[in-house]
Amino acid sequence: MSEMTRTPIGETAQAVGQTVKISGWVQTKRDHGKITFIDLRDRTGVIQCVGYKKMGELTTESVVELVGLVKQRPEKMVNADSPLGTVEFDVQEYTILNPAKELPIQVDEDGRDINEESRLRYRYLDLRRERMRKIVKLRSDYFHAMREALYEREFTEVETPMLTKSTKEGARDFVVPSRLQPGKFYALPQSPQQYKQLLMTAGVERYFQFARCIRDEDLRADRGFEFTQLDLEMSFVKREDVMKTVEDVVKQSVKAVGGKLKDETFPVFDYKDAMAKFGADKFDLRTEEEKAAGVLSFAWVINFPFFKKVDTSDAAEVMDGKSGWTFTHNPFSSPIPEHEEWLLKGERVGEILTTQYDLVCNGYEAGGGSIRAHRPELLRATFKVMGYSDAEIQDGVGHMLEAFEVGTPPHGGIALGLDRHVMMLANEDSLREVIAFPMTSSGKTAVMDAPSTVSDEQLKELHLQIVLPKVAKK
Amino acid sequence: MSEMTRTPIGETAQAVGQTVKISGWVQTKRDHGKITFIDLRDRTGVIQCVGYKKMGELTTESVVELVGLVKQRPEKMVNADSPLGTVEFDVQEYTILNPAKELPIQVDEDGRDINEESRLRYRYLDLRRERMRKIVKLRSDYFHAMREALYEREFTEVETPMLTKSTKEGARDFVVPSRLQPGKFYALPQSPQQYKQLLMTAGVERYFQFARCIRDEDLRADRGFEFTQLDLEMSFVKREDVMKTVEDVVKQSVKAVGGKLKDETFPVFDYKDAMAKFGADKFDLRTEEEKAAGVLSFAWVINFPFFKKVDTSDAAEVMDGKSGWTFTHNPFSSPIPEHEEWLLKGERVGEILTTQYDLVCNGYEAGGGSIRAHRPELLRATFKVMGYSDAEIQDGVGHMLEAFEVGTPPHGGIALGLDRHVMMLANEDSLREVIAFPMTSSGKTAVMDAPSTVSDEQLKELHLQIVLPKVAKK
Repeated sequence: MSEMTRTPIGETAQAVGQTVKISGWVQTKRDHGKITFIDLRDRTGVIQCVGYKKMGELTTESVVELVGLVKQRPEKMVNADSPLGTVEFDVQEYTILNPAKELPIQVDEDGRDINEESRLRYRYLDLRRERMRKIVKLRSDYFHAMREALYEREFTEVETPMLTKSTKEGARDFVVPSRLQPGKFYALPQSPQQYKQLLMTAGVERYFQFARCIRDEDLRADRGFEFTQLDLEMSFVKREDVMKTVEDVVKQSVKAVGGKLKDETFPVFDYKDAMAKFGADKFDLRTEEEKAAGVLSFAWVINFPFFKKVDTSDAAEVMDGKSGWTFTHNPFSSPIPEHEEWLLKGERVGEILTTQYDLVCNGYEAGGGSIRAHRPELLRATFKVMGYSDAEIQDGVGHMLEAFEVGTPPHGGIALGLDRHVMMLANEDSLREVIAFPMTSSGKTAVMDAPSTVSDEQLKELHLQIVLPKVAKK
Repeated sequence: MSEMTRTPIGETAQAVGQTVKISGWVQTKRDHGKITFIDLRDRTGVIQCVGYKKMGELTTESVVELVGLVKQRPEKMVNADSPLGTVEFDVQEYTILNPAKELPIQVDEDGRDINEESRLRYRYLDLRRERMRKIVKLRSDYFHAMREALYEREFTEVETPMLTKSTKEGARDFVVPSRLQPGKFYALPQSPQQYKQLLMTAGVERYFQFARCIRDEDLRADRGFEFTQLDLEMSFVKREDVMKTVEDVVKQSVKAVGGKLKDETFPVFDYKDAMAKFGADKFDLRTEEEKAAGVLSFAWVINFPFFKKVDTSDAAEVMDGKSGWTFTHNPFSSPIPEHEEWLLKGERVGEILTTQYDLVCNGYEAGGGSIRAHRPELLRATFKVMGYSDAEIQDGVGHMLEAFEVGTPPHGGIALGLDRHVMMLANEDSLREVIAFPMTSSGKTAVMDAPSTVSDEQLKELHLQIVLPKVAKK
């Protein structure tokens, strides 16, 4: 590499008449024999470069370093469609920093016609396409804006464990065998629900985390094993306080990245009104015109039933709802104050409303939260309604009940599904488009060959033996 | 709860003469019969409250809401040691929001005399002590400052997968059985090393992540299974460029949280000079005076040997170094340019120096990174030196070699051990003091009962059977 300082391509327009060094990827090449034109791309821009004979050897997507003169283009040669269309780069020297062989997938189009497996196997190429580069940047910018909005409101960021205990979140856990404690397993967090509540017991008062959550659910286009949620929790609040704070943070962050909102104040629907009006608790309020304009339409839904009859075809629900009742959203929620007595007495179970608030956007669920039970008798009553014995309650949430007896403030919070937020901001329709290295729909990790086999030695250390099904399924 | 808006205790001094609502924890109580004094604490401050007879019922650490009058104290009653020592709160009404039973551990001291198991089991109480509250806040503030420093330098935040492939990082992986692919396992990331390099192939150019890393290492006071690293990577850089950027980010962030630096420019030591001078590659440059002043003494160490003779007592080294040679720091590093030929020819292996740079602070390793091999022949040569066959290289890092043939820029980066940074900033000497919910030294998760057993049903779904050792160890 030349010892000159590298000039970002986006800044070359300010360097007309100067000899500078630029480096990046050969986006296109037009070899006219004596003259070779290339468009060179870095993360800041693309510039047309004019070189001579030998440069014909450059292959597209190779990484090169060019030293040369930045020239103003004659007026009739200006390309008004390009941000750097007023200048061109007269190559004096070039160095190939990394040559590109023929690419297994092309990166100059939007990539939607390439099959998923190839796109994910070569994700490091797939991410080079303009559409994907913008999404990666948008995601970073949106997270940045959210953090700023939270810091301004005096939230404290706290990390919670990745190796933890199975919790009652309603989905299947991924488990991690312990080498030091034979036959025992950690669970990966489905969400930091209990830890964030314990941080309220600790007195943090305003907590947030961009939490990595992992659930062993059956995969579908719109759901992977991993997701990122903005997890937050506040003390000494009522339902409306959390909703107000979250609404303000979301609005501020959406605007910061140039997103457009349909409503400056998010409309609030009662669950029963939403069901009557839309036939669903997720709905899209946009007109066709608003859809075309790329507007985000947020709304709140409140006053959900706390419990529902167990769906006997769902194994997890059957397990959680021994009594025939299971929770609709979150067993750690508090009912609305008017219904606390019913819960405590186990009466009118089907009529009890939870403090749950769901944030919906463009027909999707964009987040959900609630005011939590912070009195032990309320949490105990919830599990009783579902048919848990005292011993089972103690085993499952005994540590929470203990925490609720040593000064736990009233508290509530929310979890926002950020992959989905970015998906909507980017106007995409699959979560895989907004995750840098997502899994394939069969659960294979992008680029890497995972899951894969482990050695007998490793299995032995973990005190495990594999029992393959008689007829192995793929 | 009263419908009045809550006033943060830290703002009561601006509310003299007003009737306000405050809420928080009863830090101390002095019951003088007719009059009861309590100190009420929230996250913003502590205020002395004066109440009457019945308030004697309040127990310490209960959560209460008080409505009352903020009064200026008479001059002779001012407590100059307390930020709110000029005011007191005349209680008119109080509501117990959550009563505290007798506490299993006390929270009014620094907690160092309480055994670790109790502190971690009741971590939600342990975190209430002033020392711990300050650390939680300091950690959040330091991370905030680092992010700001990175955003200013146009870094993009990207998340990489938690369920991934076993990588060659030199420690033992935690593995996660796949339900959908019988007999196969994901690995939890020891670091995002390969993904961050692939992001350079993708053209991100400046990447960072506050990465959650997980390694199944034998536990010791100074090391847990989980840690958080600031992971960053840059394209088109030389060793000195990365060191300069990292040094600037660290200095800016340390100062932002009030930390004191011994050196405005971090001294740089050659590995061999450091060994000759200090007998170690981690060293403490502070005088006793500087230690007492809580100064942070950062320094760089460079020009490490790339390879070392395998320590035959270390199973991982034996596995990686089939030839008798293994890497000292990172097999993905590039040697210094002058030694590339030796590596490519497999000559003078013991003399090859790596581009590795270690950041040390106060005698600890505070981070480490390198310029990476971005040409396939260099990475291949590194594994050849260690005795890997072509097939093993293809199986282990074939995807990296492929990426290096489609336009990967020169790149390098670093990983900073942030738990340790916060430990030093807080002047603590155990990592457990700076992690909200750390594991015990026996690998048990704080508060929760993990690891724990899983059901036979779950094991069956995962195609696993437990094989307990003949003599079960605890």
